[in-house]
Amino acid sequence: MRSNEIQMTVEFGNTDAAGIVFYPNYFMWFDKGTHWLFKSMNIAPKELQAKHNIILPILDAQCTFERALVYDDNITIKSTIVEVNRKTFKVQHEIFKDGIRSCNGYEIRGWVKKEGAHIAATLIPDEIREILTIAPVGKL
Amino acid sequence: MRSNEIQMTVEFGNTDAAGIVFYPNYFMWFDKGTHWLFKSMNIAPKELQAKHNIILPILDAQCTFERALVYDDNITIKSTIVEVNRKTFKVQHEIFKDGIRSCNGYEIRGWVKKEGAHIAATLIPDEIREILTIAPVGKL
Amino acid sequence: MRSNEIQMTVEFGNTDAAGIVFYPNYFMWFDKGTHWLFKSMNIAPKELQAKHNIILPILDAQCTFERALVYDDNITIKSTIVEVNRKTFKVQHEIFKDGIRSCNGYEIRGWVKKEGAHIAATLIPDEIREILTIAPVGKL
Amino acid sequence: MRSNEIQMTVEFGNTDAAGIVFYPNYFMWFDKGTHWLFKSMNIAPKELQAKHNIILPILDAQCTFERALVYDDNITIKSTIVEVNRKTFKVQHEIFKDGIRSCNGYEIRGWVKKEGAHIAATLIPDEIREILTIAPVGKL
Repeated sequence: MRSNEIQMTVEFGNTDAAGIVFYPNYFMWFDKGTHWLFKSMNIAPKELQAKHNIILPILDAQCTFERALVYDDNITIKSTIVEVNRKTFKVQHEIFKDGIRSCNGYEIRGWVKKEGAHIAATLIPDEIREILTIAPVGKL
Repeated sequence: MRSNEIQMTVEFGNTDAAGIVFYPNYFMWFDKGTHWLFKSMNIAPKELQAKHNIILPILDAQCTFERALVYDDNITIKSTIVEVNRKTFKVQHEIFKDGIRSCNGYEIRGWVKKEGAHIAATLIPDEIREILTIAPVGKL
Repeated sequence: MRSNEIQMTVEFGNTDAAGIVFYPNYFMWFDKGTHWLFKSMNIAPKELQAKHNIILPILDAQCTFERALVYDDNITIKSTIVEVNRKTFKVQHEIFKDGIRSCNGYEIRGWVKKEGAHIAATLIPDEIREILTIAPVGKL
Repeated sequence: MRSNEIQMTVEFGNTDAAGIVFYPNYFMWFDKGTHWLFKSMNIAPKELQAKHNIILPILDAQCTFERALVYDDNITIKSTIVEVNRKTFKVQHEIFKDGIRSCNGYEIRGWVKKEGAHIAATLIPDEIREILTIAPVGKL
Protein backbone atom coordinates (compact mmCIF):
# COMPACT_ATOMS: atom_id res chain seq x y z
CA MET A 1 0.00 0.00 0.00
CA ARG A 2 1.01 3.62 -0.44
CA SER A 3 3.02 5.44 2.16
CA ASN A 4 4.55 8.90 2.57
CA GLU A 5 6.91 10.51 5.03
CA ILE A 6 7.22 14.15 6.00
CA GLN A 7 9.86 15.74 8.20
CA MET A 8 9.16 18.57 10.60
CA THR A 9 10.33 20.11 13.86
CA VAL A 10 8.30 20.44 17.05
CA GLU A 11 7.73 24.17 17.52
CA PHE A 12 7.56 25.95 20.88
CA GLY A 13 3.84 26.56 20.47
CA ASN A 14 3.14 22.83 20.19
CA THR A 15 4.05 22.23 23.84
CA ASP A 16 2.06 22.65 27.02
CA ALA A 17 2.83 23.55 30.64
CA ALA A 18 4.16 20.00 31.18
CA GLY A 19 6.90 20.85 28.69
CA ILE A 20 5.81 18.20 26.20
CA VAL A 21 3.70 18.22 23.04
CA PHE A 22 0.02 18.87 23.81
CA TYR A 23 -1.66 15.77 22.47
CA PRO A 24 -4.29 17.27 20.10
CA ASN A 25 -1.31 18.42 18.02
CA TYR A 26 -0.63 14.78 17.12
CA PHE A 27 -3.99 14.68 15.38
CA MET A 28 -3.20 17.96 13.63
CA TRP A 29 -0.10 16.19 12.34
CA PHE A 30 -2.14 13.13 11.34
CA ASP A 31 -4.39 15.41 9.30
CA LYS A 32 -1.30 16.98 7.74
CA GLY A 33 0.10 13.49 7.07
CA THR A 34 -3.00 12.48 5.12
CA HIS A 35 -2.99 15.68 3.08
CA TRP A 36 0.67 15.20 2.09
CA LEU A 37 0.14 11.48 1.42
CA PHE A 38 -2.57 12.37 -1.08
CA LYS A 39 -0.41 15.11 -2.59
CA SER A 40 2.40 12.55 -2.98
CA MET A 41 0.03 10.33 -4.98
CA ASN A 42 -0.99 13.22 -7.26
CA ILE A 43 -4.53 13.18 -5.95
CA ALA A 44 -4.21 16.31 -3.82
CA PRO A 45 -7.29 16.95 -1.62
CA LYS A 46 -7.51 20.47 -3.05
CA GLU A 47 -7.78 19.10 -6.62
CA LEU A 48 -10.16 16.33 -5.57
CA GLN A 49 -12.51 18.96 -4.24
CA ALA A 50 -12.09 21.54 -7.00
CA LYS A 51 -12.33 19.10 -9.92
CA HIS A 52 -14.37 16.20 -8.57
CA ASN A 53 -16.35 17.63 -5.62
CA ILE A 54 -14.78 14.95 -3.45
CA ILE A 55 -13.99 15.65 0.20
CA LEU A 56 -12.40 13.29 2.74
CA PRO A 57 -14.18 13.88 6.08
CA ILE A 58 -12.83 12.27 9.23
CA LEU A 59 -14.96 9.42 10.61
CA ASP A 60 -12.71 7.98 13.29
CA ALA A 61 -9.27 8.75 14.73
CA GLN A 62 -7.11 7.11 17.37
CA CYS A 63 -3.62 7.44 18.76
CA THR A 64 -1.51 5.45 21.20
CA PHE A 65 1.13 7.71 22.74
CA GLU A 66 4.38 5.85 23.26
CA ARG A 67 7.01 8.48 24.05
CA ALA A 68 6.69 12.18 24.79
CA LEU A 69 8.04 14.74 22.32
CA VAL A 70 9.52 18.07 23.36
CA TYR A 71 10.27 21.45 21.76
CA ASP A 72 12.78 21.32 18.89
CA ASP A 73 12.56 17.56 18.33
CA ASN A 74 13.02 16.66 14.68
CA ILE A 75 10.30 14.23 13.78
CA THR A 76 9.10 12.14 10.87
CA ILE A 77 5.41 11.55 10.24
CA LYS A 78 4.89 8.31 8.32
CA SER A 79 1.42 7.91 6.83
CA THR A 80 0.37 4.64 5.20
CA ILE A 81 -2.86 3.52 3.55
CA VAL A 82 -3.77 0.31 5.40
CA GLU A 83 -7.36 -0.31 4.32
CA VAL A 84 -9.45 0.67 1.32
CA ASN A 85 -13.11 -0.14 1.80
CA ARG A 86 -16.06 0.58 -0.47
CA LYS A 87 -16.63 4.16 0.65
CA THR A 88 -13.99 4.65 3.30
CA PHE A 89 -10.26 4.19 3.80
CA LYS A 90 -7.91 3.94 6.74
CA VAL A 91 -4.54 5.67 7.11
CA GLN A 92 -2.03 4.58 9.74
CA HIS A 93 0.10 7.39 11.15
CA GLU A 94 3.32 6.86 13.04
CA ILE A 95 5.60 9.59 14.32
CA PHE A 96 9.30 8.85 14.78
CA LYS A 97 12.14 10.70 16.46
CA ASP A 98 15.66 9.42 15.79
CA GLY A 99 14.15 6.22 14.40
CA ILE A 100 12.23 5.50 17.60
CA ARG A 101 8.45 5.56 17.37
CA SER A 102 6.74 8.19 19.46
CA CYS A 103 3.14 7.32 18.63
CA ASN A 104 1.00 5.04 16.50
CA GLY A 105 -2.50 5.85 15.38
CA TYR A 106 -4.97 5.96 12.53
CA GLU A 107 -7.61 7.96 10.76
CA ILE A 108 -10.65 6.54 8.98
CA ARG A 109 -12.00 8.89 6.36
CA GLY A 110 -14.92 8.84 4.00
CA TRP A 111 -14.93 9.29 0.22
CA VAL A 112 -17.71 11.83 -0.01
CA LYS A 113 -19.28 13.75 -2.87
CA LYS A 114 -20.24 17.29 -1.96
CA GLU A 115 -22.34 19.16 -4.49
CA GLY A 116 -23.75 22.36 -3.03
CA ALA A 117 -25.53 21.36 0.15
CA HIS A 118 -25.85 17.74 -0.98
CA ILE A 119 -23.32 15.48 0.71
CA ALA A 120 -23.18 11.70 0.22
CA ALA A 121 -20.64 8.93 0.75
CA THR A 122 -19.68 7.54 -2.65
CA LEU A 123 -17.95 4.44 -3.98
CA ILE A 124 -14.20 4.90 -4.22
CA PRO A 125 -13.56 4.71 -8.01
CA ASP A 126 -11.40 1.85 -9.29
CA GLU A 127 -8.64 4.15 -10.55
CA ILE A 128 -8.36 5.72 -7.09
CA ARG A 129 -8.45 2.30 -5.44
CA GLU A 130 -5.51 1.28 -7.60
CA ILE A 131 -3.52 4.36 -6.66
CA LEU A 132 -4.20 3.82 -2.97
CA THR A 133 -3.45 0.11 -2.88
CA ILE A 134 -0.60 -0.50 -5.30
CA ALA A 135 2.93 0.03 -4.01
CA PRO A 136 4.73 2.84 -5.79
CA VAL A 137 7.12 1.88 -8.60
CA GLY A 138 10.54 1.08 -7.28
CA LYS A 139 9.31 0.36 -3.79
CA LEU A 140 8.04 -3.20 -4.35
CA MET B 1 -19.20 53.27 22.76
CA ARG B 2 -20.35 49.68 23.03
CA SER B 3 -18.53 47.21 25.19
CA ASN B 4 -18.93 43.56 26.20
CA GLU B 5 -17.28 41.28 28.71
CA ILE B 6 -16.90 37.52 28.61
CA GLN B 7 -15.58 35.25 31.34
CA MET B 8 -13.48 32.20 30.68
CA THR B 9 -10.81 29.99 32.21
CA VAL B 10 -7.32 29.40 30.84
CA GLU B 11 -7.24 25.76 29.75
CA PHE B 12 -4.20 23.48 29.98
CA GLY B 13 -3.84 23.44 26.21
CA ASN B 14 -3.46 27.24 26.09
CA THR B 15 -0.07 27.10 27.81
CA ASP B 16 3.42 26.43 26.45
CA ALA B 17 6.61 24.85 27.79
CA ALA B 18 7.31 28.05 29.76
CA GLY B 19 4.16 27.26 31.77
CA ILE B 20 2.38 30.42 30.65
CA VAL B 21 -0.22 31.19 27.98
CA PHE B 22 1.27 30.91 24.46
CA TYR B 23 0.75 34.40 23.08
CA PRO B 24 -1.13 33.68 19.81
CA ASN B 25 -3.96 32.49 22.09
CA TYR B 26 -4.50 36.11 23.16
CA PHE B 27 -5.42 36.95 19.58
CA MET B 28 -7.72 33.91 19.47
CA TRP B 29 -9.44 35.45 22.49
CA PHE B 30 -9.53 38.88 20.82
CA ASP B 31 -11.30 37.28 17.85
CA LYS B 32 -13.70 35.59 20.27
CA GLY B 33 -14.20 38.92 22.05
CA THR B 34 -15.26 40.65 18.85
CA HIS B 35 -17.66 37.86 17.91
CA TRP B 36 -19.36 38.00 21.33
CA LEU B 37 -19.41 41.81 21.31
CA PHE B 38 -21.33 41.71 18.02
CA LYS B 39 -23.62 38.99 19.36
CA SER B 40 -24.31 41.20 22.42
CA MET B 41 -25.42 44.00 20.07
CA ASN B 42 -27.78 41.69 18.16
CA ILE B 43 -25.70 41.97 15.02
CA ALA B 44 -24.13 38.52 15.24
CA PRO B 45 -21.39 37.93 12.62
CA LYS B 46 -23.20 34.76 11.55
CA GLU B 47 -26.39 36.71 10.78
CA LEU B 48 -24.50 39.55 9.14
CA GLN B 49 -23.02 37.08 6.72
CA ALA B 50 -26.11 34.94 6.15
CA LYS B 51 -28.56 37.84 5.72
CA HIS B 52 -26.44 40.72 4.48
CA ASN B 53 -23.32 39.11 2.95
CA ILE B 54 -21.22 41.19 5.33
CA ILE B 55 -17.97 39.81 6.72
CA LEU B 56 -15.56 41.48 9.14
CA PRO B 57 -12.03 40.60 8.01
CA ILE B 58 -9.08 41.49 10.20
CA LEU B 59 -6.88 44.30 8.89
CA ASP B 60 -4.59 44.96 11.84
CA ALA B 61 -4.09 43.53 15.33
CA GLN B 62 -1.80 44.42 18.20
CA CYS B 63 -1.28 43.41 21.81
CA THR B 64 0.87 44.68 24.66
CA PHE B 65 1.46 41.87 27.15
CA GLU B 66 1.51 43.19 30.70
CA ARG B 67 1.32 40.12 32.97
CA ALA B 68 1.61 36.42 32.19
CA LEU B 69 -1.41 34.15 32.58
CA VAL B 70 -1.20 30.51 33.67
CA TYR B 71 -3.35 27.39 33.53
CA ASP B 72 -6.66 27.65 35.39
CA ASP B 73 -6.65 31.44 35.67
CA ASN B 74 -10.16 32.85 35.56
CA ILE B 75 -10.10 35.75 33.14
CA THR B 76 -12.36 38.44 31.74
CA ILE B 77 -12.07 39.59 28.14
CA LYS B 78 -13.37 43.15 27.78
CA SER B 79 -14.00 44.24 24.19
CA THR B 80 -14.90 47.84 23.38
CA ILE B 81 -15.62 49.64 20.13
CA VAL B 82 -13.21 52.59 20.14
CA GLU B 83 -13.37 53.84 16.55
CA VAL B 84 -15.92 53.65 13.77
CA ASN B 85 -14.53 54.86 10.46
CA ARG B 86 -16.15 54.91 7.02
CA LYS B 87 -15.42 51.29 6.12
CA THR B 88 -13.51 50.03 9.14
CA PHE B 89 -13.82 49.92 12.90
CA LYS B 90 -11.47 49.35 15.82
CA VAL B 91 -12.08 47.18 18.86
CA GLN B 92 -9.97 47.48 21.99
CA HIS B 93 -9.46 44.23 23.87
CA GLU B 94 -8.27 44.01 27.46
CA ILE B 95 -7.90 40.83 29.47
CA PHE B 96 -8.20 40.98 33.25
CA LYS B 97 -7.46 38.51 36.03
CA ASP B 98 -8.71 39.43 39.51
CA GLY B 99 -9.29 42.97 38.30
CA ILE B 100 -5.67 43.39 37.19
CA ARG B 101 -5.07 43.89 33.49
CA SER B 102 -3.01 41.20 31.82
CA CYS B 103 -2.90 42.66 28.32
CA ASN B 104 -4.18 45.52 26.21
CA GLY B 105 -4.59 45.37 22.45
CA TYR B 106 -6.80 46.05 19.50
CA GLU B 107 -8.18 44.74 16.26
CA ILE B 108 -9.03 46.82 13.19
CA ARG B 109 -11.57 45.12 10.97
CA GLY B 110 -13.20 45.94 7.69
CA TRP B 111 -16.91 46.11 6.85
CA VAL B 112 -16.84 44.04 3.71
CA LYS B 113 -19.50 42.84 1.29
CA LYS B 114 -18.87 39.36 -0.03
CA GLU B 115 -21.09 38.22 -2.87
CA GLY B 116 -19.78 35.06 -4.47
CA ALA B 117 -16.16 35.72 -5.39
CA HIS B 118 -16.72 39.48 -5.33
CA ILE B 119 -15.35 41.09 -2.17
CA ALA B 120 -15.37 44.84 -1.50
CA ALA B 121 -15.07 47.15 1.49
CA THR B 122 -18.38 48.92 1.97
CA LEU B 123 -19.64 51.96 3.88
CA ILE B 124 -20.77 51.06 7.38
CA PRO B 125 -24.55 51.78 7.27
CA ASP B 126 -25.87 54.50 9.56
CA GLU B 127 -28.02 52.12 11.59
CA ILE B 128 -24.96 49.97 12.31
CA ARG B 129 -22.88 53.04 13.10
CA GLU B 130 -25.49 54.01 15.68
CA ILE B 131 -25.44 50.60 17.29
CA LEU B 132 -21.66 50.59 17.46
CA THR B 133 -21.25 54.12 18.82
CA ILE B 134 -24.13 54.73 21.18
CA ALA B 135 -23.70 53.58 24.77
CA PRO B 136 -26.19 50.88 25.72
CA VAL B 137 -29.28 51.97 27.64
CA GLY B 138 -28.59 52.20 31.34
CA LYS B 139 -24.86 52.50 30.86
CA LEU B 140 -24.74 56.21 30.03
CA MET C 1 -19.00 6.14 38.02
CA ARG C 2 -18.35 9.87 38.11
CA SER C 3 -19.42 12.14 35.32
CA ASN C 4 -19.33 15.86 34.55
CA GLU C 5 -20.81 18.11 31.90
CA ILE C 6 -19.53 21.41 30.60
CA GLN C 7 -21.27 23.78 28.22
CA MET C 8 -19.47 25.80 25.60
CA THR C 9 -19.91 27.41 22.19
CA VAL C 10 -18.02 26.55 19.02
CA GLU C 11 -15.88 29.60 18.25
CA PHE C 12 -15.03 30.83 14.76
CA GLY C 13 -11.40 29.79 15.17
CA ASN C 14 -12.39 26.17 15.81
CA THR C 15 -13.55 25.71 12.23
CA ASP C 16 -11.64 24.93 9.05
CA ALA C 17 -12.02 25.75 5.36
CA ALA C 18 -14.75 23.11 5.10
CA GLY C 19 -16.81 25.29 7.46
CA ILE C 20 -16.93 22.64 10.17
CA VAL C 21 -14.96 22.03 13.36
CA PHE C 22 -11.36 20.95 12.60
CA TYR C 23 -11.16 17.55 14.26
CA PRO C 24 -8.10 17.98 16.52
CA ASN C 25 -10.26 20.48 18.44
CA TYR C 26 -12.43 17.61 19.63
CA PHE C 27 -9.39 16.21 21.46
CA MET C 28 -8.66 19.64 22.90
CA TRP C 29 -12.20 19.52 24.28
CA PHE C 30 -11.66 15.98 25.58
CA ASP C 31 -8.59 17.23 27.46
CA LYS C 32 -10.67 20.11 28.81
CA GLY C 33 -13.42 17.65 29.76
CA THR C 34 -11.03 15.58 31.86
CA HIS C 35 -9.62 18.64 33.61
CA TRP C 36 -13.08 19.88 34.56
CA LEU C 37 -14.22 16.38 35.57
CA PHE C 38 -11.33 16.23 38.03
CA LYS C 39 -12.06 19.74 39.24
CA SER C 40 -15.69 18.71 39.81
CA MET C 41 -14.48 15.86 42.07
CA ASN C 42 -12.26 18.22 44.10
CA ILE C 43 -9.12 16.55 42.84
CA ALA C 44 -8.09 19.29 40.44
CA PRO C 45 -5.09 18.35 38.24
CA LYS C 46 -3.35 21.54 39.38
CA GLU C 47 -3.61 20.51 43.05
CA LEU C 48 -2.67 16.91 42.29
CA GLN C 49 0.54 18.14 40.78
CA ALA C 50 1.35 20.89 43.27
CA LYS C 51 0.59 18.85 46.41
CA HIS C 52 1.15 15.24 45.38
CA ASN C 53 3.47 15.41 42.33
CA ILE C 54 0.85 13.49 40.39
CA ILE C 55 0.37 14.11 36.68
CA LEU C 56 -2.14 12.46 34.33
CA PRO C 57 -0.37 11.92 31.00
CA ILE C 58 -2.34 10.77 27.97
CA LEU C 59 -1.68 7.17 26.89
CA ASP C 60 -4.38 6.62 24.30
CA ALA C 61 -7.18 8.66 22.75
CA GLN C 62 -9.89 7.88 20.22
CA CYS C 63 -12.92 9.56 18.72
CA THR C 64 -15.75 8.48 16.44
CA PHE C 65 -17.16 11.49 14.64
CA GLU C 66 -20.92 11.20 14.22
CA ARG C 67 -22.17 14.62 13.16
CA ALA C 68 -20.29 17.75 12.11
CA LEU C 69 -20.36 20.84 14.30
CA VAL C 70 -20.26 24.39 12.95
CA TYR C 71 -19.45 27.89 14.21
CA ASP C 72 -21.71 29.12 17.02
CA ASP C 73 -23.11 25.70 17.92
CA ASN C 74 -23.86 25.42 21.63
CA ILE C 75 -22.44 22.13 22.79
CA THR C 76 -22.20 19.98 25.91
CA ILE C 77 -19.11 17.92 26.66
CA LYS C 78 -20.00 14.95 28.87
CA SER C 79 -17.01 13.24 30.46
CA THR C 80 -17.45 10.00 32.41
CA ILE C 81 -14.99 7.75 34.22
CA VAL C 82 -15.59 4.32 32.68
CA GLU C 83 -12.59 2.31 33.90
CA VAL C 84 -10.21 2.56 36.83
CA ASN C 85 -7.28 0.18 36.51
CA ARG C 86 -4.23 -0.25 38.75
CA LYS C 87 -2.22 2.65 37.32
CA THR C 88 -4.45 3.98 34.57
CA PHE C 89 -8.02 5.14 34.06
CA LYS C 90 -10.31 5.67 31.11
CA VAL C 91 -12.61 8.61 30.50
CA GLN C 92 -15.41 8.50 27.94
CA HIS C 93 -16.15 11.80 26.24
CA GLU C 94 -19.31 12.55 24.33
CA ILE C 95 -20.22 15.88 22.75
CA PHE C 96 -23.87 16.77 22.30
CA LYS C 97 -25.67 19.51 20.41
CA ASP C 98 -29.39 19.95 21.11
CA GLY C 99 -29.36 16.55 22.83
CA ILE C 100 -28.02 14.79 19.74
CA ARG C 101 -24.58 13.21 20.04
CA SER C 102 -21.95 14.65 17.75
CA CYS C 103 -19.06 12.39 18.73
CA ASN C 104 -18.08 9.60 21.10
CA GLY C 105 -14.54 8.92 22.23
CA TYR C 106 -12.21 8.21 25.11
CA GLU C 107 -8.93 9.03 26.74
CA ILE C 108 -6.76 6.59 28.69
CA ARG C 109 -4.47 8.38 31.12
CA GLY C 110 -1.81 7.27 33.55
CA TRP C 111 -1.53 8.03 37.26
CA VAL C 112 2.07 9.12 37.30
CA LYS C 113 4.39 10.41 40.02
CA LYS C 114 6.77 13.10 38.80
CA GLU C 115 9.51 14.11 41.20
CA GLY C 116 12.14 16.23 39.47
CA ALA C 117 13.25 14.29 36.42
CA HIS C 118 12.00 11.01 37.88
CA ILE C 119 8.70 9.91 36.36
CA ALA C 120 6.95 6.63 37.20
CA ALA C 121 3.46 5.19 36.88
CA THR C 122 2.07 4.67 40.38
CA LEU C 123 -0.81 2.72 41.93
CA ILE C 124 -3.99 4.78 42.05
CA PRO C 125 -4.57 5.24 45.82
CA ASP C 126 -7.72 3.71 47.31
CA GLU C 127 -9.19 7.07 48.32
CA ILE C 128 -8.85 8.31 44.73
CA ARG C 129 -10.26 5.04 43.39
CA GLU C 130 -13.31 5.59 45.57
CA ILE C 131 -13.80 9.12 44.33
CA LEU C 132 -13.49 8.02 40.71
CA THR C 133 -15.78 4.99 40.94
CA ILE C 134 -18.58 5.92 43.33
CA ALA C 135 -21.56 7.76 41.92
CA PRO C 136 -21.95 11.25 43.35
CA VAL C 137 -24.51 11.67 46.17
CA GLY C 138 -27.96 12.26 44.78
CA LYS C 139 -27.14 10.72 41.43
CA LEU C 140 -27.48 7.04 42.42
CA MET D 1 20.91 43.55 11.05
CA ARG D 2 20.36 39.80 11.06
CA SER D 3 17.61 38.17 9.09
CA ASN D 4 16.36 34.65 8.43
CA GLU D 5 13.83 33.08 6.10
CA ILE D 6 11.85 29.90 6.53
CA GLN D 7 9.63 28.20 3.99
CA MET D 8 6.42 26.41 4.86
CA THR D 9 3.03 25.47 3.49
CA VAL D 10 -0.35 26.58 4.82
CA GLU D 11 -1.97 23.45 6.22
CA PHE D 12 -5.70 22.71 6.14
CA GLY D 13 -5.96 23.17 9.90
CA ASN D 14 -4.66 26.74 9.68
CA THR D 15 -7.81 27.93 7.91
CA ASP D 16 -11.20 28.96 9.25
CA ALA D 17 -14.78 28.82 8.00
CA ALA D 18 -14.07 31.81 5.74
CA GLY D 19 -11.62 29.55 3.87
CA ILE D 20 -8.62 31.72 4.74
CA VAL D 21 -5.90 31.52 7.39
CA PHE D 22 -7.28 32.24 10.88
CA TYR D 23 -5.29 35.27 11.96
CA PRO D 24 -3.83 34.07 15.31
CA ASN D 25 -1.84 31.59 13.21
CA TYR D 26 0.18 34.50 11.82
CA PHE D 27 1.44 35.18 15.33
CA MET D 28 2.22 31.47 15.78
CA TRP D 29 4.35 31.84 12.64
CA PHE D 30 5.98 35.02 14.02
CA ASP D 31 6.94 33.06 17.15
CA LYS D 32 8.31 30.30 14.95
CA GLY D 33 10.18 32.90 12.88
CA THR D 34 11.94 34.29 15.95
CA HIS D 35 12.91 30.81 17.16
CA TRP D 36 14.44 29.90 13.79
CA LEU D 37 16.13 33.31 13.47
CA PHE D 38 17.88 32.68 16.78
CA LYS D 39 18.75 29.12 15.75
CA SER D 40 20.24 30.53 12.53
CA MET D 41 22.52 32.77 14.62
CA ASN D 42 23.68 29.86 16.78
CA ILE D 43 22.00 31.28 19.84
CA ALA D 44 19.08 28.86 19.90
CA PRO D 45 16.41 29.73 22.50
CA LYS D 46 16.70 26.21 23.89
CA GLU D 47 20.46 26.64 24.55
CA LEU D 48 19.99 30.17 25.89
CA GLN D 49 17.64 28.80 28.51
CA ALA D 50 19.52 25.60 29.32
CA LYS D 51 22.99 27.17 29.54
CA HIS D 52 22.32 30.79 30.45
CA ASN D 53 18.85 30.82 32.07
CA ILE D 54 17.81 33.36 29.46
CA ILE D 55 14.25 33.42 28.16
CA LEU D 56 12.75 35.75 25.54
CA PRO D 57 9.22 36.61 26.67
CA ILE D 58 6.90 38.48 24.35
CA LEU D 59 6.17 42.08 25.35
CA ASP D 60 4.35 43.40 22.31
CA ALA D 61 3.20 42.03 18.97
CA GLN D 62 1.46 43.56 15.97
CA CYS D 63 0.47 42.57 12.47
CA THR D 64 -0.95 44.37 9.46
CA PHE D 65 -2.77 41.90 7.23
CA GLU D 66 -2.31 42.76 3.58
CA ARG D 67 -3.51 39.74 1.59
CA ALA D 68 -5.35 36.62 2.69
CA LEU D 69 -3.65 33.24 2.54
CA VAL D 70 -5.44 29.98 1.78
CA TYR D 71 -4.85 26.26 2.24
CA ASP D 72 -1.79 24.90 0.44
CA ASP D 73 -0.16 28.27 -0.19
CA ASN D 74 3.63 28.02 -0.12
CA ILE D 75 4.87 30.87 2.04
CA THR D 76 8.12 32.41 3.24
CA ILE D 77 8.42 33.90 6.71
CA LYS D 78 11.14 36.55 6.79
CA SER D 79 12.24 37.58 10.28
CA THR D 80 14.65 40.48 10.77
CA ILE D 81 16.15 42.07 13.88
CA VAL D 82 15.25 45.76 13.54
CA GLU D 83 16.03 47.13 17.01
CA VAL D 84 18.29 46.09 19.86
CA ASN D 85 17.63 48.08 23.00
CA ARG D 86 19.17 47.71 26.48
CA LYS D 87 16.96 44.87 27.67
CA THR D 88 14.62 44.32 24.74
CA PHE D 89 14.77 43.73 21.01
CA LYS D 90 12.37 43.99 18.11
CA VAL D 91 11.91 41.51 15.29
CA GLN D 92 10.07 42.42 12.09
CA HIS D 93 8.15 39.56 10.49
CA GLU D 94 6.92 39.55 6.93
CA ILE D 95 5.16 36.69 5.19
CA PHE D 96 5.42 36.36 1.43
CA LYS D 97 3.63 34.23 -1.14
CA ASP D 98 5.08 34.18 -4.65
CA GLY D 99 7.17 37.21 -3.73
CA ILE D 100 4.13 39.27 -2.77
CA ARG D 101 3.86 40.30 0.87
CA SER D 102 0.88 38.93 2.72
CA CYS D 103 1.48 40.60 6.09
CA ASN D 104 3.92 42.80 7.96
CA GLY D 105 4.31 42.82 11.72
CA TYR D 106 6.66 42.75 14.66
CA GLU D 107 7.40 41.24 18.02
CA ILE D 108 9.13 43.03 20.89
CA ARG D 109 10.72 40.58 23.31
CA GLY D 110 12.62 40.91 26.55
CA TRP D 111 16.05 39.51 27.44
CA VAL D 112 15.14 37.97 30.75
CA LYS D 113 17.07 35.96 33.32
CA LYS D 114 15.02 33.22 34.93
CA GLU D 115 16.58 31.48 37.90
CA GLY D 116 14.07 29.35 39.74
CA ALA D 117 11.13 31.61 40.53
CA HIS D 118 13.26 34.74 40.14
CA ILE D 119 12.65 36.50 36.83
CA ALA D 120 14.27 39.80 35.84
CA ALA D 121 14.93 41.73 32.64
CA THR D 122 18.68 41.84 32.08
CA LEU D 123 21.08 43.85 29.93
CA ILE D 124 21.63 42.22 26.55
CA PRO D 125 25.34 41.25 26.68
CA ASP D 126 27.70 42.90 24.18
CA GLU D 127 28.55 39.65 22.42
CA ILE D 128 24.84 38.99 21.83
CA ARG D 129 24.29 42.57 20.72
CA GLU D 130 27.01 42.08 18.13
CA ILE D 131 25.45 38.90 16.84
CA LEU D 132 22.03 40.53 16.59
CA THR D 133 23.16 43.74 14.91
CA ILE D 134 25.97 42.81 12.52
CA ALA D 135 25.01 41.64 9.08
CA PRO D 136 26.03 38.06 8.38
CA VAL D 137 29.28 37.52 6.44
CA GLY D 138 28.66 37.68 2.73
CA LYS D 139 25.44 39.62 3.12
CA LEU D 140 26.95 43.09 3.58
